[in-house]
Amino acid sequence: MAGKRIRVKAPATVSNLSCGFDVLGLALDEPFDVVDLELTDTGTVVIDDIRGCGRLSRDPEQNVVGVVLKAASAMAGSSTGFRVSIEKGIRPGSGIGSSGASAAAAAFGANLLLGEKFTSSEMVRLAMEGERLASGSAHADNVAPALLGGIILVRSYEPLDIVRLHVPPELYCVVIHPETEIKTSVARGLLESQVPLTTAVRQWGNLAGLVAGLYREDYDLIGRSLIDFVAEPKRSVLIEGFDLVRSTAMECGALGAGISGSGPSVFALCRGGDSAAAVMKGMSEAMKSQGIGFDAYVSPVSRRGAQVW
Amino acid sequence: MAGKRIRVKAPATVSNLSCGFDVLGLALDEPFDVVDLELTDTGTVVIDDIRGCGRLSRDPEQNVVGVVLKAASAMAGSSTGFRVSIEKGIRPGSGIGSSGASAAAAAFGANLLLGEKFTSSEMVRLAMEGERLASGSAHADNVAPALLGGIILVRSYEPLDIVRLHVPPELYCVVIHPETEIKTSVARGLLESQVPLTTAVRQWGNLAGLVAGLYREDYDLIGRSLIDFVAEPKRSVLIEGFDLVRSTAMECGALGAGISGSGPSVFALCRGGDSAAAVMKGMSEAMKSQGIGFDAYVSPVSRRGAQVW
Repeated sequence: MAGKRIRVKAPATVSNLSCGFDVLGLALDEPFDVVDLELTDTGTVVIDDIRGCGRLSRDPEQNVVGVVLKAASAMAGSSTGFRVSIEKGIRPGSGIGSSGASAAAAAFGANLLLGEKFTSSEMVRLAMEGERLASGSAHADNVAPALLGGIILVRSYEPLDIVRLHVPPELYCVVIHPETEIKTSVARGLLESQVPLTTAVRQWGNLAGLVAGLYREDYDLIGRSLIDFVAEPKRSVLIEGFDLVRSTAMECGALGAGISGSGPSVFALCRGGDSAAAVMKGMSEAMKSQGIGFDAYVSPVSRRGAQVW
Repeated sequence: MAGKRIRVKAPATVSNLSCGFDVLGLALDEPFDVVDLELTDTGTVVIDDIRGCGRLSRDPEQNVVGVVLKAASAMAGSSTGFRVSIEKGIRPGSGIGSSGASAAAAAFGANLLLGEKFTSSEMVRLAMEGERLASGSAHADNVAPALLGGIILVRSYEPLDIVRLHVPPELYCVVIHPETEIKTSVARGLLESQVPLTTAVRQWGNLAGLVAGLYREDYDLIGRSLIDFVAEPKRSVLIEGFDLVRSTAMECGALGAGISGSGPSVFALCRGGDSAAAVMKGMSEAMKSQGIGFDAYVSPVSRRGAQVW
């Protein structure tokens, strides 16, 4: 088995989707991370190279890919090791699942190299170990869509229950990633530990509306439901220019817009590629007008998630 | 127009459905209320008769049917009056939308007598005025399904946004109504005004799972999602025998079970009529074993809601 190699990629993801705080995530087609894996007989993980980001650790105990591969070997009862090379297409701290994509690629690749021993749910659990390292909490709302593609509901953690939701065919996503970084832990710290029941009811009414809108392919209902009463009011203050870029997205025809994950990226959902291109143009001009550097992406919802590359 | 008559019925409803506190409601086929309406040229509402319940007021200002009819005349800009006869098939205080059914029947009947001037949304708003009288709050989670049938999501109140969800064909509902009464206001008073964010996330994960389960016709997912972390832990103490009747429902094969509205009725959702019959039998025996009197109903989800009778 030693010497067997594979190259896999896994995409960026937008979690929360406004009303689905901590339970929803959506996979993009790009950007994505690429991970090269080679089986070895050393029993250890060696990270040879990390391209595209200078500051991630090559210590396998301090790198999400290393942690996931070690967990995969343990779950498979295997004594093999891995040599690894990572190409980061997604910048850490962007709020579009950078650590989640690397973790998903590692879990997906390890499964193929170790003889496809893992179920989808087991791959999600393995990738969650990477998230535990990256953010201190083993959440699944980025790694599950990065692995499986589409729009994913994490209904429950105990037991883990991952539900693939229907993806309307014309649904596109725009992401603007400003050149600032927000630590998930800082963004989490802004949230109140208690929510007024009336606010929670409004939030879950919208989440139920969004899920119904996805299945009905009712783009208006999707748009009406993309409101966040819980996290956005607290976190948006961390994102310079948020109000303008969000309102510009809506004026340019977005169905809805909000913070991707814990930010600073801002996402917009759109109906169709032409609308998405117009929304991306408008959001980009709004960022430029404020002198804030940024990256911009437009993508249909990825149907595949992690894949051989 | 004076002298024109109509007889309408509107069914009982199960609101909340465990995870959908304040936003979901489901229409039954039975029990139901029947309202006879006759147009008059008096400009006033006269309630001649209320059968099936001795304690409801015949003062039109203090009766949900009277209040809804008055609001309907005002909305239509009409100076006509109504003579009314009400047959209560649903006992007040049961937790299965007794006031909501009368209000829905009144709004539906008034619309037909006044020349079908109202949209569905306007009928819901009219019926909500009855709920305002009955419970002090103009909620829609009973009147909307009583009017429209099916399973209804109240996504938002401002603006009012009523969404008809998909109803899986084999979905049945069992209701056990114990001979006790719980005032909605008392049941509401038991709820905390704040919920922990972690609890809210678990609740809306389940609500999203339930909505997805309805569209996918995935009865297992529906069942896994029928959990209430918010209201049931507080309110179930008011319902003698709740734990036994709920656990019996689950042992007899129910998909899920919980409190209907603010109680005391207990509902169970089941897959198919045979399963529902077995669950009703088990729940009934559980009630009998504790010496508690009750009514029991089994019904598919009503497709029609309010209708001419």
